[in-house]
Amino acid sequence: MTESSNQPVLGVDIGGTKVAVGLVDRNGTILNHERKPMVANRTPEAAFDAVAGAIDSLLSSENAIHSIGICAPGPLDPKTGVILNPPNLPCWRNFPLADKIKTRYSLPVKVDNDANAAALAETRWGAARGYHYVFYACIGTGIGTGIVLDGRIYHGKTGSAGEGGHVSIDYRGPLCGCGKRGCIEILAAGPAIGARARSKLSASPSRHSAILDLAKGNVSAVTSETVGQAFAAGDPLAREILQETVEVLTPWLGNIIDLLDPDILVLGGGVAAMLAPFFDEIKNRLPGWCVNPHVAAIPLVMAHYGADAGIAGGAALCSEESL
Amino acid sequence: MTESSNQPVLGVDIGGTKVAVGLVDRNGTILNHERKPMVANRTPEAAFDAVAGAIDSLLSSENAIHSIGICAPGPLDPKTGVILNPPNLPCWRNFPLADKIKTRYSLPVKVDNDANAAALAETRWGAARGYHYVFYACIGTGIGTGIVLDGRIYHGKTGSAGEGGHVSIDYRGPLCGCGKRGCIEILAAGPAIGARARSKLSASPSRHSAILDLAKGNVSAVTSETVGQAFAAGDPLAREILQETVEVLTPWLGNIIDLLDPDILVLGGGVAAMLAPFFDEIKNRLPGWCVNPHVAAIPLVMAHYGADAGIAGGAALCSEESL
Repeated sequence: MTESSNQPVLGVDIGGTKVAVGLVDRNGTILNHERKPMVANRTPEAAFDAVAGAIDSLLSSENAIHSIGICAPGPLDPKTGVILNPPNLPCWRNFPLADKIKTRYSLPVKVDNDANAAALAETRWGAARGYHYVFYACIGTGIGTGIVLDGRIYHGKTGSAGEGGHVSIDYRGPLCGCGKRGCIEILAAGPAIGARARSKLSASPSRHSAILDLAKGNVSAVTSETVGQAFAAGDPLAREILQETVEVLTPWLGNIIDLLDPDILVLGGGVAAMLAPFFDEIKNRLPGWCVNPHVAAIPLVMAHYGADAGIAGGAALCSEESL
Repeated sequence: MTESSNQPVLGVDIGGTKVAVGLVDRNGTILNHERKPMVANRTPEAAFDAVAGAIDSLLSSENAIHSIGICAPGPLDPKTGVILNPPNLPCWRNFPLADKIKTRYSLPVKVDNDANAAALAETRWGAARGYHYVFYACIGTGIGTGIVLDGRIYHGKTGSAGEGGHVSIDYRGPLCGCGKRGCIEILAAGPAIGARARSKLSASPSRHSAILDLAKGNVSAVTSETVGQAFAAGDPLAREILQETVEVLTPWLGNIIDLLDPDILVLGGGVAAMLAPFFDEIKNRLPGWCVNPHVAAIPLVMAHYGADAGIAGGAALCSEESL
């Protein structure tokens, strides 16, 4: 191993409201990190300066780094590192992020979307280490997914592959923000869980639930987090809502399995953490939602990385195999 | 190119009721073929003898062949060529087909399922030549699909990948033969089209339709073929039924695109041929069923091989790259 291959890499996670940066060693350990506000609605340069400022804040305190890996909002082109037209970063249209960072820091730079990058971090260093056909989903405010085959992100022809959050299991179902109907994102992400709870509470105002207590009696203040807290406290309505979420996630995972035949399923994000007590039940139900005769052998596990998945993901993009 | 690499290969297509065999040259041209009855419900040896008899019928009239490629009913293990427990070949359970053929003929042998093999034939020699991210579907009595990435069948971990016919777009929908609900196979394959027609005719007995004329007034005799013939004759009810089929195929293809980001979609089989006049409409609708920003650039085309797709597919398994 050369000296440079031991140097840490810088992982950058660009969101609509913040930029998180962290130094990550070659074992995937996050050595330190910073979080700065993002500037999404002004000029392209202002947004770039926000990102560069966050990077500088870590570089000033450190010596040599090997490379910079960036998770950015999609759609983007992972081959060129150009950000196309992200809905939550409207100031960047066809913005050559990788080239601009490369020019400023004279370092190798990789750019990909957050779910692809997090999937790679789980494969290199996390819950999917040693697996060759990895399906990863981050279930939170939305559902982002990534596919890692033989240690490399599966990008498809244009870099748009792995959009599993917009696989529909209900083509006449509720309209997703993306314009399709019945996407798993509109059925099972955090907002769907919050909406399920509010709808049930409104429909049965006399039913007592810890969900309502936690929201101080204000149905409209109920979110998926409220449901998670109530479930942890043993609330039957919260259990019912999470159960319904399991009942949509299972057919969706069955579809993924029947197309991809993965050797592991990794779920991350806040909703996945909330659903972890149901993983055994999902496993038990999956054979009814797959034709794959080997489904029982596919592990379903929680992601290793939590809120820092973007930093780890960015760093994973820089590991030798992908650079 | 060595002499042996110019020799034709033998493609074998094993179904529940027949075995088709053909000699195929290295350009994918089928030089000749035979069709023999299959013996599916007796002993494993009787079934093997039926396959060997079909092979012998072509070998006796020819000189050297390079190798034998076989499409067999799944589930099977394409790595070992073992047939696991196919529903429509109940006599073979854990049957080492590749080894037995190899022993008998002293030739290289490859075994895969029909849709995977046909997908490979389309990629090598047919409608998807030159494409690197190929999704193929054969829509007939059932829906079988195959994924070919960079010229190789994508098998997943266990050889069970590419079962797109059992991707569900309606998790509360009709029960498929596989046990899942809302699989595209139960919604859009030939039997679904026949059932749609019978149901509409029964619901509106006074409505005149060429479908009923073609079935000599007997609703229960209506099949997807009847619908296809009536559509060709300009029948409005037949158009309505095929239109409804388009309305389920489009969300399904959208799911495939959002997961795989293919560079071409190839449809084969009798139902696909019947739906060819709707391909432009499917293309026009797909952007509403995909988040992929490049969907408009993905060709949707008819397969090159028709009823002989199994023979071509078997032969494609033997092309240099896969052997």
